[in-house]
Amino acid sequence: MVTLIEPRLLKGFRDFLPPAETARRGLTEKIEATFRSFGFVPIDTPALEYAEILLGKGGGETEKQVYRFKDNGDRDVALRFDLTVPFARFVAQHQAELYFPFKRYHIGKVWRGENAQRGRYREFTQCDFDIIGSDSPAADFEILMMIRAVMLNLGVGAKVKFNHRGLFNRFLSHIGQRENSVEILRAVDKVAKLGIAETEAALAEISGDANARKILDFTGASGNHGVGETFEQTLGRITEMSGGPSPESERLAAISRFMGDALLGETGDVSFVLDPSITRGLDYYTGVVFETFLNDLPDIGSVCAGGRYDNLAGLYSKNRISGIGSAVGLDRLIAALEILDRLPGGTGSAPVAIACQKLEDSGLYQALAQRFRDAGVPCEVFLDAAESLDTKHLVKQFVLAEKKGLRWMVIPGEKPQDTFTMRDLGARKNREGLSVGEAVKIILEERQ
Amino acid sequence: MVTLIEPRLLKGFRDFLPPAETARRGLTEKIEATFRSFGFVPIDTPALEYAEILLGKGGGETEKQVYRFKDNGDRDVALRFDLTVPFARFVAQHQAELYFPFKRYHIGKVWRGENAQRGRYREFTQCDFDIIGSDSPAADFEILMMIRAVMLNLGVGAKVKFNHRGLFNRFLSHIGQRENSVEILRAVDKVAKLGIAETEAALAEISGDANARKILDFTGASGNHGVGETFEQTLGRITEMSGGPSPESERLAAISRFMGDALLGETGDVSFVLDPSITRGLDYYTGVVFETFLNDLPDIGSVCAGGRYDNLAGLYSKNRISGIGSAVGLDRLIAALEILDRLPGGTGSAPVAIACQKLEDSGLYQALAQRFRDAGVPCEVFLDAAESLDTKHLVKQFVLAEKKGLRWMVIPGEKPQDTFTMRDLGARKNREGLSVGEAVKIILEERQ
Repeated sequence: MVTLIEPRLLKGFRDFLPPAETARRGLTEKIEATFRSFGFVPIDTPALEYAEILLGKGGGETEKQVYRFKDNGDRDVALRFDLTVPFARFVAQHQAELYFPFKRYHIGKVWRGENAQRGRYREFTQCDFDIIGSDSPAADFEILMMIRAVMLNLGVGAKVKFNHRGLFNRFLSHIGQRENSVEILRAVDKVAKLGIAETEAALAEISGDANARKILDFTGASGNHGVGETFEQTLGRITEMSGGPSPESERLAAISRFMGDALLGETGDVSFVLDPSITRGLDYYTGVVFETFLNDLPDIGSVCAGGRYDNLAGLYSKNRISGIGSAVGLDRLIAALEILDRLPGGTGSAPVAIACQKLEDSGLYQALAQRFRDAGVPCEVFLDAAESLDTKHLVKQFVLAEKKGLRWMVIPGEKPQDTFTMRDLGARKNREGLSVGEAVKIILEERQ
Repeated sequence: MVTLIEPRLLKGFRDFLPPAETARRGLTEKIEATFRSFGFVPIDTPALEYAEILLGKGGGETEKQVYRFKDNGDRDVALRFDLTVPFARFVAQHQAELYFPFKRYHIGKVWRGENAQRGRYREFTQCDFDIIGSDSPAADFEILMMIRAVMLNLGVGAKVKFNHRGLFNRFLSHIGQRENSVEILRAVDKVAKLGIAETEAALAEISGDANARKILDFTGASGNHGVGETFEQTLGRITEMSGGPSPESERLAAISRFMGDALLGETGDVSFVLDPSITRGLDYYTGVVFETFLNDLPDIGSVCAGGRYDNLAGLYSKNRISGIGSAVGLDRLIAALEILDRLPGGTGSAPVAIACQKLEDSGLYQALAQRFRDAGVPCEVFLDAAESLDTKHLVKQFVLAEKKGLRWMVIPGEKPQDTFTMRDLGARKNREGLSVGEAVKIILEERQ
């Protein structure tokens, strides 16, 4: 007797069973279709790279999380922990083969050995889209419009909150706090999580009581400003607080004008808000930054965020390449869509199956199924015969079909003919004498 | 001055630039659509698993190729080197959550530290589809029909060669060579590569001169038999040589009848051949085995192969689970389709772009582009303005558009109107006064 190996997964890793994987693929397909409709093109990079390449940028925290090891050739290698660093390497390496502005998306797995306790996974899928090689406000605007299109295509309402990092820094210079900007931006980034009192205390420690109050006023988080303001009022206020008109305030105004022209005031279910409290944690960003919150589930956090950076590939290339990028938080979005019952795709991928009454007719069953497939309806064929032709012996197949999430079952009868009985497994009713064309029509109508 | 890190890849790994990645995604989408049309559902498993799970089955050769290391928690882990072993673990672990027969596909990356010299990659995508939990000949038949459907959907002709491992073994028993079957099957598997003389010598060494000749006769490789035989003649011959009718010969006959019923003799561009020389190398297979060769490029080797096994998850579970599986050789198929000019998808994913004449009109350009997208035509927007409204200043944008693989460019004019000029970048001609509807019609017509 062989000893069995216990089938189990590493902590923080997961299998995707058909319902979950069908939903995940359905979701990424919809997102990808939106990207492509904007003329974005896909790339891919290896999961494994030289550790030096991936960690050149990484601080201590990143390094601890990375899966890093010596390969069989004694090379120091690591699994990618995001798609941004590989993209920077990719652009530096292939500059001569790309056309700029370069609009690309990248959907792929990344790995982080994080503390897996807090519902975090060690393997997850990232979904990034960037425009690089253009500093145009039209690029910032396009990324924001793409987020809107993604949300509308998924059938969910959302609020995209955006801001300009550079304008924030200009304000900090104006109040003599530019040298503390990294700490201040990090503190402000946590205001939604920690609340105003705690944030104000943290800010006061960095820059004194008076400045802490000014910073909270600027962000609108203090409650003294920001509530009920229009875009123009907010922009006017933060422009003034940062010392008057600047290229940064001009850019925000341009983006606002583009939105007005494109949407004619009708933002539909996805709206845009100028929110000076949005700073994003990373030092990396230098321009417009943004986060996206679902109208019906804002507390789940941002489902799509990013910003403009001015030196993507500085570690690998002397050429400064600026751009703007965004990432969809797929896991969070899936969780949210599941709660909102908006997840695309069902549990089974075929709505109809051909029952197997006599094994010897399997060739005819496949031919019949192919007529459904040719008409655009996925169709499964059952492979193991019922005990007899009596329909009561099909009950097992009905039960299995229902469990698999199928809605319809074709009962071909004594000898498959041009017409047949089709059972509605939901209503437990049979429709007799249907042709393939009639059956397809019923199935497609029910699907809508 | 910061020292730059040289942007480079590990040997045997590759980046996919947009044209290659677009093609790869286009191909897998078509294959996946075929799988789904047969009611197959997707799953996914982690890239990283306990080494014990992945290598329980592995012999010395596998082990040497595997990326295996200690993670930060000192666990002995490895990157998956195929999708079969994780599938076996998955089925053992989730038996209670699955419905049988279970028809699944799995498309994912795998990693092998192979000798990367011979054009082999260390990271590649596998594409598996299996039916497990049914021993029915209708399952064998369905897998063969799916291969046919995949090839037809890709627009390539192919020959699917199949055989029955069990019948081969029955024949070997009949000539007293059953105990040498592993070596014999491996030798026969190489006949196409090594030629008849060398194979006969190898077989003679294993089982003597007379048996070597008999084995080659059985396979049809000797040239004494097999040439010009019909399915029935081949089946009759190998049935007789293996001691008369058996469950294995019956199964081949059933599959042949199913094919006749389903295709009515019209196999189209994809035909099926009973070829007793097909044995597949792996011990793992016990029933029907098959390989697929492209009609226009047979020498590139099999692009889709697999077979029936009778104990998928034996390492992890006491339950014997039989099934039949197949894997598409994606890299080889892409190489072949490229040679045959049948690769789906082009270099650019959008056929049309809106030229940027005045940056301030970017909002209107996006609104115009959205009308193309809503009509099903991906549409890019250019983001950086030409120097003036004069069309000659658009030449740079035309050149960039052409390089990106775009075919059409909308020239919106002084102020975007309901009608516009659209430039055919291929013919270098302008069409004036088009509406979005007319432009979409022209683009869709040209696409076919």
